[in-house]
Amino acid sequence: MQNLYIGVDLGGTNIAAGIVDRTGKIIAKKSVRTNLPRPESELEKDIFNLCSDLCRENGYSLNKDIISIGIGTPGSVDGKRGIVWSNVNFGYTNWTIKENLEKIFGMSIFVENDANTAIVAEVIAGNAVGCKNALVVTLGTGVGGGAFVDGQIYSGYNYSALEVGHMVIRQNGRKCNCGRRGCFERYASAAALAKDTAAAMKKHPESLMWQVCPDIKDVNAQTAFDAMRMGDPTGEKLVRRYVEYLACGLVNLINIFQPEVVCLGGGVSNEKEFLLDLLQPYIDREDFARNARERVTVKIAKFRNDAGIIGAAMLGVNNA
Amino acid sequence: MQNLYIGVDLGGTNIAAGIVDRTGKIIAKKSVRTNLPRPESELEKDIFNLCSDLCRENGYSLNKDIISIGIGTPGSVDGKRGIVWSNVNFGYTNWTIKENLEKIFGMSIFVENDANTAIVAEVIAGNAVGCKNALVVTLGTGVGGGAFVDGQIYSGYNYSALEVGHMVIRQNGRKCNCGRRGCFERYASAAALAKDTAAAMKKHPESLMWQVCPDIKDVNAQTAFDAMRMGDPTGEKLVRRYVEYLACGLVNLINIFQPEVVCLGGGVSNEKEFLLDLLQPYIDREDFARNARERVTVKIAKFRNDAGIIGAAMLGVNNA
Repeated sequence: MQNLYIGVDLGGTNIAAGIVDRTGKIIAKKSVRTNLPRPESELEKDIFNLCSDLCRENGYSLNKDIISIGIGTPGSVDGKRGIVWSNVNFGYTNWTIKENLEKIFGMSIFVENDANTAIVAEVIAGNAVGCKNALVVTLGTGVGGGAFVDGQIYSGYNYSALEVGHMVIRQNGRKCNCGRRGCFERYASAAALAKDTAAAMKKHPESLMWQVCPDIKDVNAQTAFDAMRMGDPTGEKLVRRYVEYLACGLVNLINIFQPEVVCLGGGVSNEKEFLLDLLQPYIDREDFARNARERVTVKIAKFRNDAGIIGAAMLGVNNA
Repeated sequence: MQNLYIGVDLGGTNIAAGIVDRTGKIIAKKSVRTNLPRPESELEKDIFNLCSDLCRENGYSLNKDIISIGIGTPGSVDGKRGIVWSNVNFGYTNWTIKENLEKIFGMSIFVENDANTAIVAEVIAGNAVGCKNALVVTLGTGVGGGAFVDGQIYSGYNYSALEVGHMVIRQNGRKCNCGRRGCFERYASAAALAKDTAAAMKKHPESLMWQVCPDIKDVNAQTAFDAMRMGDPTGEKLVRRYVEYLACGLVNLINIFQPEVVCLGGGVSNEKEFLLDLLQPYIDREDFARNARERVTVKIAKFRNDAGIIGAAMLGVNNA
């Protein structure tokens, strides 16, 4: 009996699984190609084989050493019943994945939307441990969100809540794929910052950003931050404007949720304390409850690249 | 035994109390002046006297006919423990109002922030009956909000959540008293619409709004709506722009919460179906979950002027 958990990150390209202890530490991991499109039953078999192989290759017994298996998947997921209502990218609807996998595995399976596994990871074993109310905001290709509300994952009526990236912060602003204009993620995602950075570099051939990143095709969300730290005024201007956008949306979410902790994840959160130090003055000035006895704390998320696996595994701890 | 409830709306000017049945119908009401500033103990005595008088004058027995008493008050309120953490306007902190009143009354007392009583009224006896996840957004002097999340009032970590009026929808837009710029309530409150209306009237002496409201000092949120219905282009333009603002913030909240129902209250909601018909196309177009099997429904709140009393009374039903 090792009291371990398996987390499965069911992505569009790969299925990644990891053996995780209850502190969120990954002991071993393995992945296979998702190979979409395929019938759900084939994916279920692959998930079983992946978990079995992962255990065997690392000297663990699936039945004796693993308490439960958690699955994080895109789409709208009814976590309580373990059903993927709809996953447009994968082409699945009403996939009773929990029931099916429990039959195959003969053990407890938990399923959640992959944005929600990130908040579970932080609340169970990360930087929001023990919080009854917490948010994760991921600054990646888009801006995603997950919320823990009164000790539970918040999914909304139709399991599609927390699309915080599609909160408009600039009415009639930049066009978004979702059909709106001025969405938070058009300004505050890593992708948006990279795009703004490339545009600024073209205008400013003198900028140190060209030293940081000689080939404009390699520009990413870090480029402007690095240049700012080297004393580049264009890089600094970009970062300061980015932080204004980010603060605008974050304070919106703080005024709405007043969580105990907000954890920032995704690419931009690699800037860590440097980012937090730029952000905090906005929160101190604009949080509606800035004079309250208890205030929200904004932190960097603990779990990064493997947050999907860890969060999925932690579903079992959260449901214990 | 009449199985009734008393709701007390503890406002800055008046303390209003009503005897309410469990369908939310007010049977009798009465009010006294709040006369701030005063020690909490005096207010507690006045609340007791008000409720006693209300019962006696209407032929009810406080102890036999009333199941519980609910209090709605401004400020940050810990509803579970019944403590007013902080009420800046009244000057109270750490007011153990539930405990104190239970001693005076010898019966169950429930306390909540007055914005939260509105959502309780709608969920228990109004237009969101039975919803586990619902929002109320009030379009009055400001824009207020209350949320029911997984069957519970959502107050946030510090009992200051749901300040939806202070969500920025136009970054660097109109100045708000809260210290931010571009807050939702600077565009979508009844007060904002009245202000925009007065400004448009001054620019357009030909507008029918001058017929609707010959004295500009009487302009309110209804003026532009009335003129639009009379065929006035300036009134119509104002209303359409107002609805764009309102839709922007509402869709933000829908994308964040995906509640079963959103109830609109406050002055502007008097426009009822006329307002909803203008609003719905934006939601159909911009709700991120517009293709979900289950979708949010936007409605007008059932309870209006007496929502404070009714919601406070319904706290007893909600906690039963």
